[in-house]
Amino acid sequence: MAHEHDHPAAAPAGSRYRRDNADLLQRLRRIEGQVRGVQRMVEEDRYCVDILVQLAAVRSALGAVGRSLLEDHVRGCVVDAVRHGDGERAVTEVLDVIAQFSRQ
Amino acid sequence: MAHEHDHPAAAPAGSRYRRDNADLLQRLRRIEGQVRGVQRMVEEDRYCVDILVQLAAVRSALGAVGRSLLEDHVRGCVVDAVRHGDGERAVTEVLDVIAQFSRQ
Amino acid sequence: MAHEHDHPAAAPAGSRYRRDNADLLQRLRRIEGQVRGVQRMVEEDRYCVDILVQLAAVRSALGAVGRSLLEDHVRGCVVDAVRHGDGERAVTEVLDVIAQFSRQ
Amino acid sequence: MAHEHDHPAAAPAGSRYRRDNADLLQRLRRIEGQVRGVQRMVEEDRYCVDILVQLAAVRSALGAVGRSLLEDHVRGCVVDAVRHGDGERAVTEVLDVIAQFSRQ
Repeated sequence: MAHEHDHPAAAPAGSRYRRDNADLLQRLRRIEGQVRGVQRMVEEDRYCVDILVQLAAVRSALGAVGRSLLEDHVRGCVVDAVRHGDGERAVTEVLDVIAQFSRQ
Repeated sequence: MAHEHDHPAAAPAGSRYRRDNADLLQRLRRIEGQVRGVQRMVEEDRYCVDILVQLAAVRSALGAVGRSLLEDHVRGCVVDAVRHGDGERAVTEVLDVIAQFSRQ
Repeated sequence: MAHEHDHPAAAPAGSRYRRDNADLLQRLRRIEGQVRGVQRMVEEDRYCVDILVQLAAVRSALGAVGRSLLEDHVRGCVVDAVRHGDGERAVTEVLDVIAQFSRQ
Repeated sequence: MAHEHDHPAAAPAGSRYRRDNADLLQRLRRIEGQVRGVQRMVEEDRYCVDILVQLAAVRSALGAVGRSLLEDHVRGCVVDAVRHGDGERAVTEVLDVIAQFSRQ
């Protein structure tokens, strides 16, 4: 199913920005660990409020990963698309995903 | 470190609400799976916007678990505390955690 | 259209909390002034980002008023309702409005 | 205090997008009216939950104006800046204001 979006992280020559997949993965693994930690709290029948505080922390960490990935995307793909005359679609797409994030 | 919050899910006699730990665990395991799915997307170098859409979905699922746990907590612990004359602390605590959630 | 909700701020005897309408009004008037300030910025054709920063400030102020009113409501009406055996409806109602706020 | 941001809505020749100030003003005036409506509810000592529902509506309307202005800004100023080689600053600035909005 090769389509033009399959490897967009392979930015066109001249782009200064590249997504840092290693950093993303590390943060996502930490978040996975946090989610398992919350599961343990539930299994140990811990106090609701303590669990809610942890859930808020995981949600905050996910939001931070999202903002970081959004930044990489704008600095890389969107800027490149605008420079190469394909900005319209890239801009519409990124505005949609920002609205999606902001509505939760 | 046994303190009074260690087993508050063991609600006092007469309480009609109990936290559904089995349901919470099932939802948290699904969220853990979603987080691993996002890791795979990063490893496969998938398109930023597709990853952002998945991150937004995970964040939404975490928010839903939080709201559900908050509801259990208010209907169970907070209502019981108010009835047994210890409402002041329970209410302050739950308002704090709501503010914490709403600021992200 | 007098119904039971028309004057609930007149809390039953014994309630320790009352909504501070004077404080609420002062904050809402300040917010009204901020909204008019944003209108002036638009009329003067000011820079989008400067306007966005002001809009974010107004939105933050509205959120703070909402959290404050929610706190008064929980400490006053909800606690009284729970004490007087009508907690079920009050709790469902407040959880609904919290969910409504958190989804934006 | 003339600086380069004083009239950025006057987009450079060739830009296809312009901010619709008339539409923005109309929406901001409606929001001002909503804020005054909430003040009246407080003056009439209306039920907290009814006021909270209105506050949530005003906050939602402000968020919608913010998203709309953000869209105009990205399609206009940011895209132009990228095309004219001044994208770096414009992109950093817009990412900052998005983060500011998303944290409330």
